[in-house]
Amino acid sequence: MKKFINKVENVVVESLKGMALAHPELEVKTNPHYIYNKNLSKGKVSLISGGGSGHEPLHGGFVGKGMLTAACPGEIFTSPTPDQMYEAAKATDTGAGVLFIVKNYTGDVLNFETAVEMANAEGIKVTNVLVDDDVAVKDSLYTAGRRGVGGTVIIEKIVGAAAEKGYNLKDCRELAKKVNLNTRSLGIALTSCTVPAAGKPTFDLNDNEIELGVGIHGEPGQKRSEMESSDKLTEYMFDEIFNDKNYTRTIREWDIEANDWKDITLTDESLKDGDQIIAFVNSLGGTPLSELYIIYNKLSELCNKHNIKIVRNLVGPYITSLDMQGVSITLTKVDDELLNLWDAPVNTPAIKK
Amino acid sequence: MKKFINKVENVVVESLKGMALAHPELEVKTNPHYIYNKNLSKGKVSLISGGGSGHEPLHGGFVGKGMLTAACPGEIFTSPTPDQMYEAAKATDTGAGVLFIVKNYTGDVLNFETAVEMANAEGIKVTNVLVDDDVAVKDSLYTAGRRGVGGTVIIEKIVGAAAEKGYNLKDCRELAKKVNLNTRSLGIALTSCTVPAAGKPTFDLNDNEIELGVGIHGEPGQKRSEMESSDKLTEYMFDEIFNDKNYTRTIREWDIEANDWKDITLTDESLKDGDQIIAFVNSLGGTPLSELYIIYNKLSELCNKHNIKIVRNLVGPYITSLDMQGVSITLTKVDDELLNLWDAPVNTPAIKK
Repeated sequence: MKKFINKVENVVVESLKGMALAHPELEVKTNPHYIYNKNLSKGKVSLISGGGSGHEPLHGGFVGKGMLTAACPGEIFTSPTPDQMYEAAKATDTGAGVLFIVKNYTGDVLNFETAVEMANAEGIKVTNVLVDDDVAVKDSLYTAGRRGVGGTVIIEKIVGAAAEKGYNLKDCRELAKKVNLNTRSLGIALTSCTVPAAGKPTFDLNDNEIELGVGIHGEPGQKRSEMESSDKLTEYMFDEIFNDKNYTRTIREWDIEANDWKDITLTDESLKDGDQIIAFVNSLGGTPLSELYIIYNKLSELCNKHNIKIVRNLVGPYITSLDMQGVSITLTKVDDELLNLWDAPVNTPAIKK
Repeated sequence: MKKFINKVENVVVESLKGMALAHPELEVKTNPHYIYNKNLSKGKVSLISGGGSGHEPLHGGFVGKGMLTAACPGEIFTSPTPDQMYEAAKATDTGAGVLFIVKNYTGDVLNFETAVEMANAEGIKVTNVLVDDDVAVKDSLYTAGRRGVGGTVIIEKIVGAAAEKGYNLKDCRELAKKVNLNTRSLGIALTSCTVPAAGKPTFDLNDNEIELGVGIHGEPGQKRSEMESSDKLTEYMFDEIFNDKNYTRTIREWDIEANDWKDITLTDESLKDGDQIIAFVNSLGGTPLSELYIIYNKLSELCNKHNIKIVRNLVGPYITSLDMQGVSITLTKVDDELLNLWDAPVNTPAIKK
C-alpha cells in the first residue's frame, strides 16, 4: 500500500487538522471529532450529518453557509460515535433545533439514534432523517434496507438552503424526506479501494471484471460482470434507476411533539417520462473527470429518449470511496421548490455557488 | 485497462460533448476543438490556454467569468494543433487582443507559436506567455527547460481576474510573467497513469517505489525512491521548492509593437523567510482529498518554521494526470496585487468564488 499518510491510526485526525488549517472559516474539534461552521445564525435550524471517513469531500467539505452546519467523521469506513453528534448538536443549536441527516448503515443509524436521545434528554430539540437512495440492493453487508449514497449530497444542499431561508425543524425534515423519496442512485466499481488500516485492496477484481451496484465502502453490489463500454454501463445504471418503482420502507423517526420514536412508512416517487431532474454523475475517487463527462454525454441521450429533462447537474468527485475507480449516477426528480433551493447560494469547501 | 470510455479514438470528443451538455454557459466547438465562454465582454483581453487532454479540469474546467476565455484541448497528452488556437482567438477576440498561456512542452510551444503568427498575420493581436514552474528537471522527455505544471492554474486564475478588471493585453502578459516568476512546483507519483490509447500503465513502479519530481504525463522526474511517510515526502517537496533559487531562462515572446518574436531572459523571484504565499496542494488524479489535507497539515508546519505565511490555499484535483496516484505542491509568492486578483470573483465549472 502506498498512500500519503503517516501512522495509520492518525489518518483521520491529521486530515481534519489539515482541513481546519485550509478552511479557517470552519472550526474543527477533536476528541470527539466534529467540524462546524463558526458563523452560526440565531434561529436557524442546525443540519448535522456524518459517517465513516473515506468519502471526502462528504461530509466535512459540505459544511458552510447554505449547506451543513456540522459534520461528524468516524474513522475510515467506521460510524461516528454518539458523543460526536451530541457535542456537535450542543455546539450548533441556536434554539431552532437540529436535524441529523443519516445515511442508512446499521452503525450510523444506531449511533445517530443514541445521539438523538441524548440530545433530547438534555433539552436540545433534535430529529432525524434517513437517506436510502441506492437501488442496488435491499440488504447488504452494512445495511438493513437500502444504503444511503449520492442522494446524501443532494439532500444536504437542498435542505441546507431551506434552513438558510428559515424553514423550521419539522419542515426541514419533511423536505429532506421529500428529496430522498425523489432520489435514486446506482454505482459501479472498476477497482477496489484500499483502506489504510487493512493495507490491501478490500476486494479483488480481475482485469476484465467490474462490480455492478457497488456500495461506497466497496461492499458487494448486484453482481460481478465483464467490463463493457461506458455507454453500455451508463445504460445499465440509468435503467436500474429508471425502472425502480415504488420502493417502500418503514423507518424510525423522532417525533418532536411526542418526544419519542415513531415508525413511519414511506414510498418513493417513481421517475417517469416528462419529469425534470437534477443529474449527478459522481466519481468514486479514482475515475477522472473526463470519463464522468463521457458518462454524462450518454446519460443526457438516455434522458432525452424518455423525455426526462435534466434541468441541473453536478459532475465530479463528491462522495467517494478513497481511491476506488468507479462512478455512480444519482437522479433527483425536482419541482420548483427543490429547484429554487438547489440554485440558492452555497459556500463550502467543496460546493460553491 | 478498465475505463469509462467507448472507442479510444472518441474519448476526447465524447468528453467535450458531455462537458458542453453539463455546462451550457460554455460553447464547445469540435474540428478544430475548443471551448469558450459565450458571454464575451467587448474590450476585454481574451485569455486562451490549452494543451493535451488528460489533465482535467485543466484547462476546459477553468473557462468562464474571471478565468479563461477559451481552452484548446489536444488528444490525450498530445499538443493541440495551431488551427485550434487560431480559431479560438478569432472567435473570442473583441478588439483588446488575445493572450496565449502556454505550458512549456516542446509541442505546445511550437503549435502555440505557429498560432500566434497565424493570428497576427490576420490582424488579431496575440501575444504569449510561457509557464515553466516545475523545479524538478531542467530538460525532460517533452521539454527543453522546465515544465509547466500546477502554476498554470494560479496564473489562469490571477490573470483571468486582471482581464476582467480591464488590464490591457501587455499588462496581462506582464502579470502572467510575474506570477510565473513567483511560482514553483514539484510533484510525486505513487503509481503510473494509464493512457487509453496505450491500454497499459505508462511506467511501472513496484509496491514500495515512487517517482520524485514526476511530470503530469508520467514522464520521469528526479529519481525513483522508496516510499516514505507523507510528512517526509511533504518535506522533500517543500525543500526542493524552497531551496530552488534564481532560476534563469531565455524565452521567446511575441513583441506586440514590433510584430515579431523577441528573446527575453527572466529570473525567478526566490522564496524567502517572511514571504506571503498561496499554497496549492494538488491531486494528480487518484489521490483522495483526505490525503491532500494530511499533506497540507505538514506543509503549514514547514511554512511556519520559515515564517512563510500561507495567506490563501487551494486543495484538490485541479491539474491531473488521468488516474495517477500522486500529488504536487505549488507555492506562489504574492503581493497585494496578486492577492486581490486571486480573491476576485470567478465562475467556471471547476473553480468558483
